[in-house]
Amino acid sequence: MNKLTIIKVGGKIVEEDDELNRLLADFSLIEGNKILVHGGGRLATKIATQLGIESRMIDGRRITDAETLKVVSMVYAGWVNKMIVARCQSLGINAIGLTGADMNVIRSVKRPVQEIDYGFVGDVEEVDARQLGMLLLQDIVPILSPLTHDKQGHLLNTNADTIAAETAKALAQLFDVTLVYCFEKSGVLRDESDDESLIPEIDHALFLQYREQGVIQGGMIPKLDNAFRAINAGVKQVVITKASAILENKGTLIQNRLASVD
Amino acid sequence: MNKLTIIKVGGKIVEEDDELNRLLADFSLIEGNKILVHGGGRLATKIATQLGIESRMIDGRRITDAETLKVVSMVYAGWVNKMIVARCQSLGINAIGLTGADMNVIRSVKRPVQEIDYGFVGDVEEVDARQLGMLLLQDIVPILSPLTHDKQGHLLNTNADTIAAETAKALAQLFDVTLVYCFEKSGVLRDESDDESLIPEIDHALFLQYREQGVIQGGMIPKLDNAFRAINAGVKQVVITKASAILENKGTLIQNRLASVD
Repeated sequence: MNKLTIIKVGGKIVEEDDELNRLLADFSLIEGNKILVHGGGRLATKIATQLGIESRMIDGRRITDAETLKVVSMVYAGWVNKMIVARCQSLGINAIGLTGADMNVIRSVKRPVQEIDYGFVGDVEEVDARQLGMLLLQDIVPILSPLTHDKQGHLLNTNADTIAAETAKALAQLFDVTLVYCFEKSGVLRDESDDESLIPEIDHALFLQYREQGVIQGGMIPKLDNAFRAINAGVKQVVITKASAILENKGTLIQNRLASVD
Repeated sequence: MNKLTIIKVGGKIVEEDDELNRLLADFSLIEGNKILVHGGGRLATKIATQLGIESRMIDGRRITDAETLKVVSMVYAGWVNKMIVARCQSLGINAIGLTGADMNVIRSVKRPVQEIDYGFVGDVEEVDARQLGMLLLQDIVPILSPLTHDKQGHLLNTNADTIAAETAKALAQLFDVTLVYCFEKSGVLRDESDDESLIPEIDHALFLQYREQGVIQGGMIPKLDNAFRAINAGVKQVVITKASAILENKGTLIQNRLASVD
């Protein structure tokens, strides 16, 4: 199978021109098929504030009313996504910017209201691997923004880590997939304040143990949950690393032992 | 050759939910391949005002500084484009929203500074008919927002009428193209205040005569210039009509006599 690398970058890097340019230059050097998934939450909060719209977050998830949906659509799919696409094109990457609505590549359902009404937030139901595969086989590079749709006419705000994991899972049928989560630290750390305390490799048993001990906590837990779900669905490896290190073989590695045997 | 219909709708219709829904319902009934090109200038002006950015227009063209470029990217490619794509998907249209940067479908050059510095405004250089044709042949329906790029990393604000005409011209090599310009009136009128004074068909000689006489004036002149350029490049017909009449055979028709002979 052909190799496919899916890189997910957070909202912080897309705010910093130099860092973003460096990331995209590195991204252009990745061989084989590739996809970039980006965030943009910090810029969305900034624009919302300028428009007099209050940003309400619960556990890091944005409560998305109709006005907020407009803001995140504008910032994610308009500004951030198209700026990345234009810069990719200048680097010789034949990029195409997509939301889940485009070619119906990611369909989701509006999160049911339970204790919290998240508003126009989507939980991914289906990624169209065939449609994305068709683009990839023509050396087109999808740039995915964190928006999906319900196929009933509504865009839905959707977590970028989840989009990256679900896309990786769906494309694992067609490609040897490596999923790379970029964030501020060099990987999963034993001590969050010490960038040298990197855990070079982690499996599910070790993750459960570290979580139990409180070594792994906060936002890293859903990230690793996503990672292990991707591995269980056939993704070959997941790497958690710094955005500046996507070309180096560093960070925390999660390997699919079954896939490696092939 | 297969039939291709390119519909261009202005910024007013995308502001009015009911009208837009009606247009998209009609659009979904057009048979054969199709493309929608949309504006969004009125919404961009509104959002710019809310963000404290002044909108400066010269002859209907927006002076686009760096901040304004962000606004138009957000409004055109983010909000308007993706809202249309999501609604199309609910109507069974497999839509994909594109700027010229996506897959490098429309490359332009930043307009040279002469008397006026328009800023980040693009004049179209090349439309990639092959790439758009590849999508169309898979029954994918491109929704084009009025943004292009220079392939050097910059998005450029680009007139939607021009995008529609240039796309029609490029695709005339591969398809029997009908280009439909929608606006508020029922077509080109002899008397702007009388919607019954429709000119049902116009050729270049008649256009020159009416322009000379002052019957045709203002914003209709560049629209017709675009139309005749499209006809000269092999587009089969151009129709200027009301957005509510795209399924009816009404409005002002400009025919390619050479293409009709085939």
